[in-house]
Amino acid sequence: MKIALAQLNYHIGNFEENTAKIIRTVRDAANQGAELVVFAELALSGYPPRDFLEFDDFIDRCLQSAQTIAETCPETGIILGSPVRNTTGKGKPLFNAALFVYNGEIREFHKALLPNYDVFDEYRYFEPSGQFQILRWKGVNIALTICEDLWNIGDDPLYRVNPMDELIRLGPELMINIAASPFHYEQAISRREVLRENVRRYGIPLIYVNHVGAQTELLFDGGSMVFNSRGWVEDSLPFFEEGLLITDTAQLHPGTVEVIDNQHVPERIALIHDALVMGIRNYFGKLGFQKAIVGLSGGIDSAVTMVLAARALGNEHVFGLLMPSQFSSGHSVDDALKLAENLGSPCSTIAIKEIYTAFESGLSDLFAGTEFGLTEENLQARIRGTLLMAMTNKFGYILLNTSNKSEAAVGYGTLYGDMNGGLSVLGDLYKTEVYELARYINRSTEIIPLNSITKPPSAELRPGQQDSDSLPDYVVLDRLLFQYIENRKGPRELIAMGFDEMLVRKVLRLVNTNEYKRYQTPPILRVSTKAFGMGRRMPIVGKYLL
Amino acid sequence: MKIALAQLNYHIGNFEENTAKIIRTVRDAANQGAELVVFAELALSGYPPRDFLEFDDFIDRCLQSAQTIAETCPETGIILGSPVRNTTGKGKPLFNAALFVYNGEIREFHKALLPNYDVFDEYRYFEPSGQFQILRWKGVNIALTICEDLWNIGDDPLYRVNPMDELIRLGPELMINIAASPFHYEQAISRREVLRENVRRYGIPLIYVNHVGAQTELLFDGGSMVFNSRGWVEDSLPFFEEGLLITDTAQLHPGTVEVIDNQHVPERIALIHDALVMGIRNYFGKLGFQKAIVGLSGGIDSAVTMVLAARALGNEHVFGLLMPSQFSSGHSVDDALKLAENLGSPCSTIAIKEIYTAFESGLSDLFAGTEFGLTEENLQARIRGTLLMAMTNKFGYILLNTSNKSEAAVGYGTLYGDMNGGLSVLGDLYKTEVYELARYINRSTEIIPLNSITKPPSAELRPGQQDSDSLPDYVVLDRLLFQYIENRKGPRELIAMGFDEMLVRKVLRLVNTNEYKRYQTPPILRVSTKAFGMGRRMPIVGKYLL
Repeated sequence: MKIALAQLNYHIGNFEENTAKIIRTVRDAANQGAELVVFAELALSGYPPRDFLEFDDFIDRCLQSAQTIAETCPETGIILGSPVRNTTGKGKPLFNAALFVYNGEIREFHKALLPNYDVFDEYRYFEPSGQFQILRWKGVNIALTICEDLWNIGDDPLYRVNPMDELIRLGPELMINIAASPFHYEQAISRREVLRENVRRYGIPLIYVNHVGAQTELLFDGGSMVFNSRGWVEDSLPFFEEGLLITDTAQLHPGTVEVIDNQHVPERIALIHDALVMGIRNYFGKLGFQKAIVGLSGGIDSAVTMVLAARALGNEHVFGLLMPSQFSSGHSVDDALKLAENLGSPCSTIAIKEIYTAFESGLSDLFAGTEFGLTEENLQARIRGTLLMAMTNKFGYILLNTSNKSEAAVGYGTLYGDMNGGLSVLGDLYKTEVYELARYINRSTEIIPLNSITKPPSAELRPGQQDSDSLPDYVVLDRLLFQYIENRKGPRELIAMGFDEMLVRKVLRLVNTNEYKRYQTPPILRVSTKAFGMGRRMPIVGKYLL
Repeated sequence: MKIALAQLNYHIGNFEENTAKIIRTVRDAANQGAELVVFAELALSGYPPRDFLEFDDFIDRCLQSAQTIAETCPETGIILGSPVRNTTGKGKPLFNAALFVYNGEIREFHKALLPNYDVFDEYRYFEPSGQFQILRWKGVNIALTICEDLWNIGDDPLYRVNPMDELIRLGPELMINIAASPFHYEQAISRREVLRENVRRYGIPLIYVNHVGAQTELLFDGGSMVFNSRGWVEDSLPFFEEGLLITDTAQLHPGTVEVIDNQHVPERIALIHDALVMGIRNYFGKLGFQKAIVGLSGGIDSAVTMVLAARALGNEHVFGLLMPSQFSSGHSVDDALKLAENLGSPCSTIAIKEIYTAFESGLSDLFAGTEFGLTEENLQARIRGTLLMAMTNKFGYILLNTSNKSEAAVGYGTLYGDMNGGLSVLGDLYKTEVYELARYINRSTEIIPLNSITKPPSAELRPGQQDSDSLPDYVVLDRLLFQYIENRKGPRELIAMGFDEMLVRKVLRLVNTNEYKRYQTPPILRVSTKAFGMGRRMPIVGKYLL
């Protein structure tokens, strides 16, 4: 049987466009001989639809879309994901379903394992299925599962049931898994190994169809693939691009000849780069915006953000605004201007001294007798944030936030100042990773002025300031933050790992007391296993590790 | 048997303080003759501990606290909530447990029904229990359950099992339920009815112990109570206050004489008032701050916020900052000053015209040829937001946000301007509810100047501006918003209810396109059944109803 894998970029709640795209793809695949076309999990709604799932009207729209597809494409078998209603009278009101659509009819297969950790909230909406059935189509018995259903195979299983253990008893010859498996920089490899382990365990080929495209902070990398019965990737779709792949199930039972995976996973930093560019492009595209503005400081964070935005939106659609103060060094202005020149992007300069002076004067009575300090540093950052927002309001830009994960973690940034923006591009990259990305961008040509990469990082909010005045060296800081944030190591474990006890206490306290700032920051494009945002939910008011 | 209900205000992750408070209360109760002292769900950690539950170290600290209590108070039976490890090797790594502590030993009872909707994420951390056992203590068989375990009694049960249906077969004579049941303005009545329904169904008395106190946005109202076997509240603890209540189980089997509930639930607006005052007080107290600052506009929102803050923190600890522009009316300044005078709170004035002019001048090249508009309105709000933040940075205030739910819903506010703040006091009250609260505050004395209540609402960001220029009448708007936000009615349902179709489309579009603003706003004290914040999770980038 010829099966098409349709790896598409959906728009959440855009039923007209999602449905039209699915119908176009079914026709395209059928023209190429496909007898079954497979789309991703919750393709009809887009993933994740979040609390729109609580609206009856939203579910109606999903089901009407499925009906439209069933009526429009009666001659091809179609598998696609959609929420459906739970009519058993018990449990959550919905199932997360794979619909099998043919000849105007729709059959439902329900997801059994509902991820409810990190960025996932599926048990908020869906009832887990406890029933397992085979899809028989064109003489082939298919075990049809949804994403997480294949992931319960480790040593400490998160769920008490294993859907494929049930399904395998029914004699399937092929597994099909439809997924919404978001990107992080280890996911492409992990995902392939988890899926391969399923093939090895159950001994039958596997077709896997994932989402591609960005949904605010969640980045879907695609990488849909076909495993033969020996567990090797026979064929695959690219990362970060839509695609259609037609495979013949007759060819998925190879002989004894050893093969290798027909899937190239790029190096980590290349994946991150491509993910971020897609993240910016889709955020703007799906919101209907064309132009970004970036506050250019001459530093590495704003430079990398500017380059990624230029690659996502086109150089001419990214505006760089320089806002030097009396504390800005000459080289900062030069480096910022050089970057804009290298990109051929528009830029402009507004000196903030006069505005700063007006604030000083307004506050002079209340601040009488106080010293220049953090307040005045924050004031500069907030003047810049206000100027950038004025530009977005006047001309329809979206402001891109340039904070990195190290800063966001320890609160080294000004709320309503440099923490402003519609989207945080680098908020899931530690400072040391921003350097790595800068070098990757510059690997063949000096796009980012070398000086922005080599000079000591500084916020330039007071004379001679350097990040190292108030923060430990980023190499040490980032290693510590990674263990605390990504690996959830507590203080005793961190000290046992060799981190200095004073440093551990100081940094953990900074991370925890700055929860209130991160609560108010823009969504962050997620590239790691634990990003700030929806996947990390901490109390703002608490006492642990303060 | 004499049982003590201990209704306490815990501090998340403050193991020293929570443990010490529990030990003090056990001793106090024992001195009054209690043989069993009952504390709330997850008392040891505070509720909700959120992703701290993913830290091994955090769980260790909980278990060590339990051990300390067990060793310190060996002579009294104690029931208290704590996370414990799931040692079965399958499922989520933790259980949400009620610990029975006596004579240095600890016995675990696990929660079966894990709320995972609205503000609740319990399935993110905990494995549901499938085992049911009775606690026998001093000759009494006790069915010990945790919060949600008693809530699956409606017509469309959310869970497939019902713990009390299992437990009742084991012959319990008394139910004890330990809870973390947050406040909303209907919850006190709903909760009592749900619990009463359990008593009627199972025919035995019920002791119910809840949290009290605020945990950032979640407000716990307490209201712990004792039901006799006929379903009447024999005794109860107050709302919004800590308390200890000792009850004798021998008296919970009344004769046939009809009784009435020995619990007074105040009127809705009084509950809201008290909840918000507690919310402010605990936010500051638990963070270790004393002083608030409020931007006073002369309008009703800032006035009500100022009064609530004064009641929470003391009049002298709330600073009102007036920041009039050329568009501010004389009566606004007068009303704001009058309010501060009525409260006896400190206040000051900074005119923003000069700062505004400096911004105009800085932007003059880039803005050449453009008209005064939304950009310039936002600029004024951002200047004010920046001044307020400068005051917080310099003097250690927390800025209280004054936005209401109607504004937050439709995006009628400036991000990084009047949407600033550490905590939103009124963000879960529609404008019409803010009026109701203002009248409640003024019920005996005119604290809020009458003019702030009676004048037409205006942002005063351009000459002669009124809210009604861009928004429908708040009475209509709030009714529509309530149906969309609280009741999740879709457009077709809203139109069928009689709302104007154009208005429905306009308002729903405003609500959805402003998700990006609400994402970056401070935590909002939750008083309704559906507040913006952790309990309402919507996509920022989507197309539904735009």
